[in-house]
Amino acid sequence: MKQNSLGKEEKEKKAPPGKKILKRIAVLTSGGDCSGMNACIRSITRTALQQGIEVYGFRKGFQGVLSNDFISLDNRSVSSKIGRGGTFLQSARCLEFKTPEGLQLGYDNLIDLGIDGLAVIGGDGSLTGAQKLHEKGFPTIGIPASIDNDLFGTDMSIGTDTALNAIVHAVDMIRDTASSHDRMFIIEVMGRNCGYLALASAVACGAEAAIIPEIPTNCDIIARRLKRRFKEKKTNSIILVAEGASSASQIAEELQNKVGYDSRVSVLGHIQRGGNATVFDRILASKLGRNAVFALEEGQSGIMMTYSKGTYSSIELTEVIRQQRPLSQGLLELAGLLEN
Amino acid sequence: MKQNSLGKEEKEKKAPPGKKILKRIAVLTSGGDCSGMNACIRSITRTALQQGIEVYGFRKGFQGVLSNDFISLDNRSVSSKIGRGGTFLQSARCLEFKTPEGLQLGYDNLIDLGIDGLAVIGGDGSLTGAQKLHEKGFPTIGIPASIDNDLFGTDMSIGTDTALNAIVHAVDMIRDTASSHDRMFIIEVMGRNCGYLALASAVACGAEAAIIPEIPTNCDIIARRLKRRFKEKKTNSIILVAEGASSASQIAEELQNKVGYDSRVSVLGHIQRGGNATVFDRILASKLGRNAVFALEEGQSGIMMTYSKGTYSSIELTEVIRQQRPLSQGLLELAGLLEN
Amino acid sequence: MKQNSLGKEEKEKKAPPGKKILKRIAVLTSGGDCSGMNACIRSITRTALQQGIEVYGFRKGFQGVLSNDFISLDNRSVSSKIGRGGTFLQSARCLEFKTPEGLQLGYDNLIDLGIDGLAVIGGDGSLTGAQKLHEKGFPTIGIPASIDNDLFGTDMSIGTDTALNAIVHAVDMIRDTASSHDRMFIIEVMGRNCGYLALASAVACGAEAAIIPEIPTNCDIIARRLKRRFKEKKTNSIILVAEGASSASQIAEELQNKVGYDSRVSVLGHIQRGGNATVFDRILASKLGRNAVFALEEGQSGIMMTYSKGTYSSIELTEVIRQQRPLSQGLLELAGLLEN
Amino acid sequence: MKQNSLGKEEKEKKAPPGKKILKRIAVLTSGGDCSGMNACIRSITRTALQQGIEVYGFRKGFQGVLSNDFISLDNRSVSSKIGRGGTFLQSARCLEFKTPEGLQLGYDNLIDLGIDGLAVIGGDGSLTGAQKLHEKGFPTIGIPASIDNDLFGTDMSIGTDTALNAIVHAVDMIRDTASSHDRMFIIEVMGRNCGYLALASAVACGAEAAIIPEIPTNCDIIARRLKRRFKEKKTNSIILVAEGASSASQIAEELQNKVGYDSRVSVLGHIQRGGNATVFDRILASKLGRNAVFALEEGQSGIMMTYSKGTYSSIELTEVIRQQRPLSQGLLELAGLLEN
Repeated sequence: MKQNSLGKEEKEKKAPPGKKILKRIAVLTSGGDCSGMNACIRSITRTALQQGIEVYGFRKGFQGVLSNDFISLDNRSVSSKIGRGGTFLQSARCLEFKTPEGLQLGYDNLIDLGIDGLAVIGGDGSLTGAQKLHEKGFPTIGIPASIDNDLFGTDMSIGTDTALNAIVHAVDMIRDTASSHDRMFIIEVMGRNCGYLALASAVACGAEAAIIPEIPTNCDIIARRLKRRFKEKKTNSIILVAEGASSASQIAEELQNKVGYDSRVSVLGHIQRGGNATVFDRILASKLGRNAVFALEEGQSGIMMTYSKGTYSSIELTEVIRQQRPLSQGLLELAGLLEN
Repeated sequence: MKQNSLGKEEKEKKAPPGKKILKRIAVLTSGGDCSGMNACIRSITRTALQQGIEVYGFRKGFQGVLSNDFISLDNRSVSSKIGRGGTFLQSARCLEFKTPEGLQLGYDNLIDLGIDGLAVIGGDGSLTGAQKLHEKGFPTIGIPASIDNDLFGTDMSIGTDTALNAIVHAVDMIRDTASSHDRMFIIEVMGRNCGYLALASAVACGAEAAIIPEIPTNCDIIARRLKRRFKEKKTNSIILVAEGASSASQIAEELQNKVGYDSRVSVLGHIQRGGNATVFDRILASKLGRNAVFALEEGQSGIMMTYSKGTYSSIELTEVIRQQRPLSQGLLELAGLLEN
Repeated sequence: MKQNSLGKEEKEKKAPPGKKILKRIAVLTSGGDCSGMNACIRSITRTALQQGIEVYGFRKGFQGVLSNDFISLDNRSVSSKIGRGGTFLQSARCLEFKTPEGLQLGYDNLIDLGIDGLAVIGGDGSLTGAQKLHEKGFPTIGIPASIDNDLFGTDMSIGTDTALNAIVHAVDMIRDTASSHDRMFIIEVMGRNCGYLALASAVACGAEAAIIPEIPTNCDIIARRLKRRFKEKKTNSIILVAEGASSASQIAEELQNKVGYDSRVSVLGHIQRGGNATVFDRILASKLGRNAVFALEEGQSGIMMTYSKGTYSSIELTEVIRQQRPLSQGLLELAGLLEN
Repeated sequence: MKQNSLGKEEKEKKAPPGKKILKRIAVLTSGGDCSGMNACIRSITRTALQQGIEVYGFRKGFQGVLSNDFISLDNRSVSSKIGRGGTFLQSARCLEFKTPEGLQLGYDNLIDLGIDGLAVIGGDGSLTGAQKLHEKGFPTIGIPASIDNDLFGTDMSIGTDTALNAIVHAVDMIRDTASSHDRMFIIEVMGRNCGYLALASAVACGAEAAIIPEIPTNCDIIARRLKRRFKEKKTNSIILVAEGASSASQIAEELQNKVGYDSRVSVLGHIQRGGNATVFDRILASKLGRNAVFALEEGQSGIMMTYSKGTYSSIELTEVIRQQRPLSQGLLELAGLLEN
């Protein structure tokens, strides 16, 4: 028996039926950071160590793969990290990895480091990178993390629940001001192609309207509703706007002309990303991370771990990348409860 | 056309196919209060009003039915209530309703008030009351609300997610103290027959152990683990105890003898019940409430609205009352990540 | 004995030495709302009722005085309001009150309603209105409420402590993202003439710099500091900007050119106003309100209640209006701890 | 020039007039931990480094002094620590240090390490230790940190404001439940000899009564008040109990007999200690720490840094230890606003 780089004695392992013997896996977080990423790294690390697998963490996403910037992860590295916002491995976009040369360099580095499998935690772009590595023959698993909740194939992505609660907490505070002043507040939230955050927040806050990319905006209808409310002496209103549908200031301008009462604009910005992870995100991230290790052990690759219909499963990365997530019918129906 | 008791003109309505014409429904909250109950009352009220149905809210659960203590609910009554903790209709236990005479009185009152259907928001005991009314022939629908998440047939009950986040927030704070002092903290959470809260919190906090009613406690194993941690210089630990499994002080005594280092006890108590509802609870409560109105319209009775496998559906109340909720296998598996 | 408008029997009261007998006072909140205003209204109401004085609350600031829009306040009106953000009496700007005719109308209305004294809760503009009423001969007391903490004569205004904690909570969340991405965040906070919020937040967050109206901005010095940090591998930075000094986007542009690394902008906006009041604001507001009632009883007018050097006292409104609040030397000194 | 232990070149320093040249100081946190301790360590560290002084941090209070358990602190050691609860230097009680032999050993160790001054952050017992070292001739400065706010000579201690806000946040949540059930809640908070926390929380929550060690409890009066409230249909009540005055369960028993309606008991426990520090505590701790370094430079010893009447100053440790902090008259007066 010899010592490996983590200082543990290596046991001669025999693969159980249907399982690959993995010696060393790696994990990275890529794209926009979100709460729950740390819980996922922790789960991957602990699960792998329990299986006798070493774990490396690349820093700053794929950039770390290209520059061999990594740390080896042990139980202590992930201690006290489960709830913390952001990602302690850091994240970044990496244009070079999108080139054939970059991809080749990344592949070579992974092989040279003796890594047997990679877990990529991130959103759309990150998962495309994961798929490229898979196509090149490197065992790679994707894990959905995106506050926008815009990924096809999973009901929830890591970070979405925390983001939603951060938004609703902020809107609850703004409502105090709105109701003190008879004002309309137009609040812009994240969501480039996907109105999930705006729609779910609107439902959860009891907002008066949500403006989302999936449904054409009709400011006339909203204005009519607001005018009726005004007559009934309800003179404060909250309207949620997904950044991908319009901007808060543009909507404010359009509505103010039509409605004729005072409005204010608030762009929630980066407070949506951070903060301690909710329980939901901690558990989701832990489970997805754990399953990713098991999937690598089973020799799988080119898939994304999912949580769908209350069940943990997986889907081909090609499906995820190719398809648009449909709007949640359940939420749309609840939008019927918005003040009207 | 005549005026009804709410002062609105009554329209002659014709039922759509497969739908009952309801004129007036009622809602009550019963048993232990929890966050999300207000969101559910609001959703029932708004959904019913949109369908042209009047809504009464009984105060203090079944007690209000016995004493004709109710208010009529309009859009304004439920305004700004979606996130607020507790229940503005108040809740109470009602022994009298459990007697045949009490049940008869309640039934008679409901009939006399011209109520066509009742939604009962609450836990185990409350749903038994609902089933009794149903058996007597009164259209009654149950809605699961219980911070313990101990109800069979639904993956989540209203209030559980908020309670979990309150617990984890408190444990995160206690962890600050634990790590400042090399201490073991034994933290008691709610859960009489059900270890869900303790187990899920333990997973989400990265606690060192969870003691739950469903699994026999082995303090020797926990003590051994703690001693090993102690040798590795990790001298602070968090252990979660479900009140139904043991008491924090008893566990502290047992462990302290075996481990030999300082411990502290904390009983989280009623902070687990209250506070603004999380987004998950607001949406769950809104959807279950909305569905309850639709179920009454469809002429259903004796069922509980459910959220299971990511889908909203329903289950016979007799099933809910008769069966024990099994421990979540997903959580149990994640417990494998607890420090060991 | 006759009945007064509140339905209470009137006692024949005799003034204690040095005290005026007041029968009825009024309170209003004016200008930008802030947390703690409700605690102040509650304290005024309860203190006055204990002294046997009736209390009216004008709605929407001075506008309510002009339009006789008021409610009478009893113990129940202010129940459960102590911590709630905003102002349940609502607030507004009122241009008409600034005209001689408006002022006269307001004065006449107050006299006609039989009001013996008025407490005005608000900032700079509101206190100017209070002084005008005082000059006209109506007993008027000002109470400082301003999240900017820009009022001369009091160390703290109602709402400032809550605003500060809201800002720091938001910045703590943004720091998660900043540290995940090696980014500079330029965060804009309120404060038109006064850098208090930006400076105190910067100290409390351990920000890298604060840009405030009282001190000329030198982006070269900041850029040099950031570059040195960058060399030491500390590549995330937080910079706080008071809206009165510059805009976050302008500072971002200037710095990005000089420093050459990625920056993001966040305008915190109205989340700074709202939310449950901190303990400090609840106690400050309660004490200032209570003292305002006592001052009216003592026949005082044209003053603002203050909290200065740990002591509750008062100051002439003319002083408050005329003078600029100097920058806190204590905070400036602590700015020496900002990363450098 | 030679290298010192921190690897920096040593400059030959000349003391400015009235200043001692310090080469190396140390800091420790002792007794019960509280939020703000980390901000204080950070401020001491940064201030000292700016003055060219090295900083050592002893671990686990005086125990670290006895066992030479310390770390050297640089800018990076205290980075991102300003808001975190607890103390990263850890804390402990140390009986050995109270013996003459222990004190001598501690003194010798400090001399042997070449330490020129010590800052002790803690409460009553810790400051007694500091005074003992001072009497032995070692330059020692105390810094008040105690969530109880029971220290004579300073209006506020580090940790009190955070503890108060944690308590009030918890009580606000419990109020939700109390008002849902017509219940009396008896809530026990910390404070062995000092009712500050209970009294200030009661004022800030609008509780119905506060039971504190400084004032004899009269349950008859409280019961009479509760009965009157009950008649007025206000059937939920919150009563705060300082642990030093009684226990929540004992008060509950006494009151329940007299009042005859349902009560619940909650012991808030260790959630009062932890959590992110409030802005007030971060700034207070930063200033007190900074001043402690300056005091050591001025050759002072045997004093505690204070914040009193809005001014930062100091007081003899003998005074602090000998005298009882009087009850705040301002708070007592505000207790007149408690529901009555």
